[in-house]
Amino acid sequence: MEAPKNEHWKVLKSEYLAHKPWFTVRCEEVKLPNGNIIPEYYIFEYPEWINVIAITKEQKFVFISQYRHGLGVSAYELCAGVCEKEDESPLVSAQRELWEETSYGNGKWSKLMEIGVNPSTHTNLTHCFLATDVEPISTQHLEATEDLTVHLLTLEEVKELLLNDQIKQALHTAPLWKYLAINHLI
Amino acid sequence: MEAPKNEHWKVLKSEYLAHKPWFTVRCEEVKLPNGNIIPEYYIFEYPEWINVIAITKEQKFVFISQYRHGLGVSAYELCAGVCEKEDESPLVSAQRELWEETSYGNGKWSKLMEIGVNPSTHTNLTHCFLATDVEPISTQHLEATEDLTVHLLTLEEVKELLLNDQIKQALHTAPLWKYLAINHLI
Repeated sequence: MEAPKNEHWKVLKSEYLAHKPWFTVRCEEVKLPNGNIIPEYYIFEYPEWINVIAITKEQKFVFISQYRHGLGVSAYELCAGVCEKEDESPLVSAQRELWEETSYGNGKWSKLMEIGVNPSTHTNLTHCFLATDVEPISTQHLEATEDLTVHLLTLEEVKELLLNDQIKQALHTAPLWKYLAINHLI
Repeated sequence: MEAPKNEHWKVLKSEYLAHKPWFTVRCEEVKLPNGNIIPEYYIFEYPEWINVIAITKEQKFVFISQYRHGLGVSAYELCAGVCEKEDESPLVSAQRELWEETSYGNGKWSKLMEIGVNPSTHTNLTHCFLATDVEPISTQHLEATEDLTVHLLTLEEVKELLLNDQIKQALHTAPLWKYLAINHLI
């Protein structure tokens, strides 16, 4: 289908409030096509992100769990991370993150979808990959600020987590439900 | 499955940087269970959000399109909004938003899922509803800052949008893919 034709906003003023790795924020005064003005609209800038549905040769899903301070819960998640400047492509970022966070690698990789964490306020997209036939290729290489546990889950366990709303991160539930839907696994 | 047992972080310092309707931010110094300290961790506070997969008696999906300034694109989306303090429940918020943004209402409502926009940095959850057999009950009641178009789409059109990554908002792709998966529509 054709993209919708809603008119873009006009930026009347734009100012950076902060320019830090996880907190780069612009405040803008914008004019809508209907003439209305929003005096303070906040935009959050981030690099592109990635995540991976990784499935081992034994048909186990490679999940991680970690404490998530925004919601204040410990939760199951996909392996996910940031596209670093040195990475040649989002695929390379995803392969690096899977290896660093879980020690898994190799396998067959394909792009599953591309979504935004919040297109109204965030500048970045998340590139979601599917990796099948992955295998352990080393030990974890966590950053000092990463504190996570690796879990190997069966398809039934993944479905149970999804059906019980136990996977809270929308950037992860979206590709997982797409994977189940297009492969008729539910 | 049981919730994972990753230990929570200890907050050493917490300070509000801003306290505005769409920009309430805390900066915290936190200590991880492994002893490492993150000196500046940013938390974004929002009220709960809702969105709705609304389907008319004629089996048309009620979508909207609007310009999204973060990504700088005009995009198809579900009807979505914020739980206002006056709303008795997220269901009431969702029914109010569907009416305000699209003029549709009535029908049969059920909760489809509950997800976070980003559990690592955002404090809120999004409550996703399914509403079937909705019908026009009035005209749109848009806020001054809302500039959106209503579209009635067929199931085939919705599937095409999803398969072509034309629905960018992860909070919307997640419930849509779940809806397709559990109803075996793909």
